[in-house]
Amino acid sequence: MLSGVGFFGGLFEFKGYNHPVLVSSVDGVGTKLKIASALEKHDTVGIDLVNHSVNDILTTSAEPLFFLDYIAMGKLVPERVEAIITGIARACREVNCALIGGETAQMPGMYGEDDYDLAGCIIGVVEKEKIIMGRSITAGDAIIGLPSSGLHTNGYSLVRRVFNVDQFHQRYPELGRTLGEALLEPHRCYYHELKPLLPRIKGLAHITGGGLLDNVPRILPPGLTARFDSKSWPVPSVFQVIQRQGKITRNEMYHVFNMGIGMVAVCTAGEAEHLLTKLPDAKAVGEIVPQVGQATVIIDDIVSIAKGKA
Amino acid sequence: MLSGVGFFGGLFEFKGYNHPVLVSSVDGVGTKLKIASALEKHDTVGIDLVNHSVNDILTTSAEPLFFLDYIAMGKLVPERVEAIITGIARACREVNCALIGGETAQMPGMYGEDDYDLAGCIIGVVEKEKIIMGRSITAGDAIIGLPSSGLHTNGYSLVRRVFNVDQFHQRYPELGRTLGEALLEPHRCYYHELKPLLPRIKGLAHITGGGLLDNVPRILPPGLTARFDSKSWPVPSVFQVIQRQGKITRNEMYHVFNMGIGMVAVCTAGEAEHLLTKLPDAKAVGEIVPQVGQATVIIDDIVSIAKGKA
Repeated sequence: MLSGVGFFGGLFEFKGYNHPVLVSSVDGVGTKLKIASALEKHDTVGIDLVNHSVNDILTTSAEPLFFLDYIAMGKLVPERVEAIITGIARACREVNCALIGGETAQMPGMYGEDDYDLAGCIIGVVEKEKIIMGRSITAGDAIIGLPSSGLHTNGYSLVRRVFNVDQFHQRYPELGRTLGEALLEPHRCYYHELKPLLPRIKGLAHITGGGLLDNVPRILPPGLTARFDSKSWPVPSVFQVIQRQGKITRNEMYHVFNMGIGMVAVCTAGEAEHLLTKLPDAKAVGEIVPQVGQATVIIDDIVSIAKGKA
Repeated sequence: MLSGVGFFGGLFEFKGYNHPVLVSSVDGVGTKLKIASALEKHDTVGIDLVNHSVNDILTTSAEPLFFLDYIAMGKLVPERVEAIITGIARACREVNCALIGGETAQMPGMYGEDDYDLAGCIIGVVEKEKIIMGRSITAGDAIIGLPSSGLHTNGYSLVRRVFNVDQFHQRYPELGRTLGEALLEPHRCYYHELKPLLPRIKGLAHITGGGLLDNVPRILPPGLTARFDSKSWPVPSVFQVIQRQGKITRNEMYHVFNMGIGMVAVCTAGEAEHLLTKLPDAKAVGEIVPQVGQATVIIDDIVSIAKGKA
């Protein structure tokens, strides 16, 4: 488009698979971008974008092949574009994913001068025989929770209703840094730690918008409930700061935020011990049980009901 | 993300190729979206998005496999999202491309209430042996121009500086409709007409931002100039209306708009006749000549100079 700095997407030669299935995902960073703008720090949102995408396709056990980014700004600021792409490129390198194409569009009148949107598309591949989708999950299986590094890429609209921009620069003793710094903490990538363990895992749920309550049901076969014990893992301080300041109910917190768990792995009770040995900061956070009423997820007293049911 | 209506990108089983090369492109619709908002007509911008993308990867002779869309709005308006996705889905069906994933994000404070951004990512495939990149183009080859349906997806920021919103509703006799309707005319897709002819074509340039002057050089080997005769094809009335109202120089018009040619095909002079028979509304619009000074493209008196040269 006019004033766009586009480069045509790339060519990717494809070999070495018997029954390759391509796995793709498109996503944005959401209003975490507004925190980046408030702090004038733009070199981590690209890490969020890529790591979020890598985790998304990892839930099928796909490995990343290539990535394409889309940046739209009201007015192109070259240093800002460079910082954003630096983050994208760094996170892609970490997982051996080719950054193969991108589009940087200038759209006057669409975005404020300091605003921009950032989205990306990842393509990965998995051997058809190795796809994991949770279909073999049964009652008695264990639920392993991998810690999140913070809010990851979700819940920022609520955060922005609770805090004003000045408060992002305020230092909180329990965070050991400013609130803004804690909020900008990049989305953790689970690829390297989970990859060698995938053959032992029945299902993986990436905990994004809607938290455990909305994301875990994606991998549950009918007739089962995932029951979590919230005392089995530590909730990071940043969530306590948000809850306190916003006077947010516990129920809403678990419906909006990941509350400290960024990825959930389900495996047999027998495999759980091995996984916990190999994943030193993961915890056993619950178990799969025969369905309790209409519940798909239960976290203590908080219940998620199967969609389309009473 | 919070309030996002995301669905996880899809799985695509991949077979039937000997040396498959994946071809990808990411792009947006740019400020053509502002015209759609002004006219409150949202069912064609998705067609623009997909057709633009299909044309982009067609320049390597790739066929589309699947598409993922990204829609971001200040406030989710379900009817508007539905209209947008209807256009995307229709255009995907036309070229047998799977609409495999998408993300619809609500980002309050980032977009105006009536504004939204729309981007997408296409993945296609081509047999390695069949890739066309223009490498065999030589002096004496013919340039075939395929007509555009209008501005396609480029030049709208300039259009919005020239006209105010009220003028979009004005009827122009030479357009046979309102200016807004002419401006919203969907981006033409060249896939079906060019696909059977690809073995006869040496290079394809999709004429997007920067017009013939910026896009044709992408496929030219060193030492050559593409010389166009602007009288050899009709310039659609919509460009004349824009030029007259904006008092825009002829030079700027050719640097910003496609000026009536949406795709350029280069072939031997001998093949040109066959192509023109099979493409009834295409024209012979120029020829490849030994390089004239530093020029890469010459349109009568308008010259594009090779980048990085004096």
